[in-house]
Amino acid sequence: MEKVYIGVDVGGMSIKAGAVNLNGEILMKDKVVTDGKNVDVFLKDIKELLVKVISWCKENNYDVQGIGFGVPGMVDNKKGLINKMANIGGRDIQLKEYLKDLNLPIYISNDANVAALGEQKFGVAKGMQNVVLLTLGTGIGGGLILNGKLFEGNEGKGAELGHVCLILNGRSCGCGRKGCLESYASASALLRMTREYMEKYKDSMMWEYCNNDINNVSGLTSFECAKKGDEAANKLIDEYVMYLGEGMLDFANIFRPEAFVIGGGISNQGEYLTNKLKAYLEKQHYGYEGSPASEVLIAKLKNDAGIIGAASLLMD
Amino acid sequence: MEKVYIGVDVGGMSIKAGAVNLNGEILMKDKVVTDGKNVDVFLKDIKELLVKVISWCKENNYDVQGIGFGVPGMVDNKKGLINKMANIGGRDIQLKEYLKDLNLPIYISNDANVAALGEQKFGVAKGMQNVVLLTLGTGIGGGLILNGKLFEGNEGKGAELGHVCLILNGRSCGCGRKGCLESYASASALLRMTREYMEKYKDSMMWEYCNNDINNVSGLTSFECAKKGDEAANKLIDEYVMYLGEGMLDFANIFRPEAFVIGGGISNQGEYLTNKLKAYLEKQHYGYEGSPASEVLIAKLKNDAGIIGAASLLMD
Repeated sequence: MEKVYIGVDVGGMSIKAGAVNLNGEILMKDKVVTDGKNVDVFLKDIKELLVKVISWCKENNYDVQGIGFGVPGMVDNKKGLINKMANIGGRDIQLKEYLKDLNLPIYISNDANVAALGEQKFGVAKGMQNVVLLTLGTGIGGGLILNGKLFEGNEGKGAELGHVCLILNGRSCGCGRKGCLESYASASALLRMTREYMEKYKDSMMWEYCNNDINNVSGLTSFECAKKGDEAANKLIDEYVMYLGEGMLDFANIFRPEAFVIGGGISNQGEYLTNKLKAYLEKQHYGYEGSPASEVLIAKLKNDAGIIGAASLLMD
Repeated sequence: MEKVYIGVDVGGMSIKAGAVNLNGEILMKDKVVTDGKNVDVFLKDIKELLVKVISWCKENNYDVQGIGFGVPGMVDNKKGLINKMANIGGRDIQLKEYLKDLNLPIYISNDANVAALGEQKFGVAKGMQNVVLLTLGTGIGGGLILNGKLFEGNEGKGAELGHVCLILNGRSCGCGRKGCLESYASASALLRMTREYMEKYKDSMMWEYCNNDINNVSGLTSFECAKKGDEAANKLIDEYVMYLGEGMLDFANIFRPEAFVIGGGISNQGEYLTNKLKAYLEKQHYGYEGSPASEVLIAKLKNDAGIIGAASLLMD
């Protein structure tokens, strides 16, 4: 019987689960839309989904070894809790305890940690020893592979890479601090900057791109207009790259990683983004003259990152 | 025969070496004053010192297992090089190659890394899994124990914790970046701040403490006058604690360490300093509400940290 691991990608609006083999292949997957409001429904939904996946594995002669979770929120990996997560009420949700009658090893981690592990086991950073993953979305998620292993910090509450201070007493951040990297280099920050630049540069191509309605601004607005040569958009992207680049220099100085892996919506910009980031890091000597260079890569596992990464948590 | 490890504490002005047993006890130590100018003399001094220590070990029936180095500069731990270090000219000093006829395993690390390892193996952070060490001196040295082991990053060039950006486009730092933590929270930064505060607050007790000569400012000036109730000095210390505290919040968010260990000259302030730092971190929820608390401890090994820590590098 082939060994498989179940990975669960918990989102605020849907929960996806899949059976993953030791090659990182998803053998089957399923999902459930959760109303995202009620803890009891949330837990019941997860259990039903898992029972379905486990049954499929049994019917198809796969030997389930354990269940890993990637959760968009704060977890306690020792106690198997979700302390809190977006879109779901409740505190300290006893997920591991709730699932104990499944009689399988269970491990709960943060979604960005899980993405980093997936990329290092089966994705773009395969086999690398030191990897820093940044997911650029509503916020900035961070995941760390250090000395070849996932690093989570005490209780699994580390790797909050979006919450390093870039500008002392800068913008208020959702975490309670001020001036966090997330406030300047997340996708949300890019949208804010786009609107600010548009207000300032009334003749920018970005207005046309948005049909002259600032409410149509998206993560593409600045990037697509910069590619077409719009001056304001290029200035904006340079500023954004500087913010993100300075955060990456912090992590370069701390970790000297073989690679940075960029995920999240903004990573769709691919080499256009990574080339700019690489140029910035090179110009700054990766934080220190004489420092080893780091690759800047785009995450590869995309929508399957959550399932594959979560399943990887319990592999050896 | 009892196993011993030789630890070498390399400084710009002197080199200390000692034989350390598996309990972290220094059985003998010796040192050599080096003129600190010439690479050839530097290497010859080190070898002669090591031959003396090794001879002593043999005469006293100790079995030397290896030699570890803590170097105040940039090293390449894979190649066994000192890329560059303070007070010694030359680049890429082939230390390991030069010592190969000693026929012993050799490992070269950065001095702050070595101090962190010493404190975790035999000092104030004994047995802890995740520890962040900061030495507050001319610069800020950083050392990381992660998942119970020394983390050095690629080539041993990581853990440069003084070089995270605290204030974007802030003060120019020796590393080439601007606004690094080191520029605001090192002992040198404290001296600069002390002089600035004295110029601004002409009635501060700090003037009397310095015999009305600003050239007499030391690392004690602000702390001692703050303890005596001087308003300007207290304001200064609060500002200093804020800078250092914000850097520690960055590391709290990244590592969730069990403890911060503070070393270097400023650590002589002991609990007066750690209590203020703890209060700051608590007020800021250790970076994130619901985060596990970190201890704030003073390094214990003091002048022996270099020898004991360096010797620890090769103890499994």
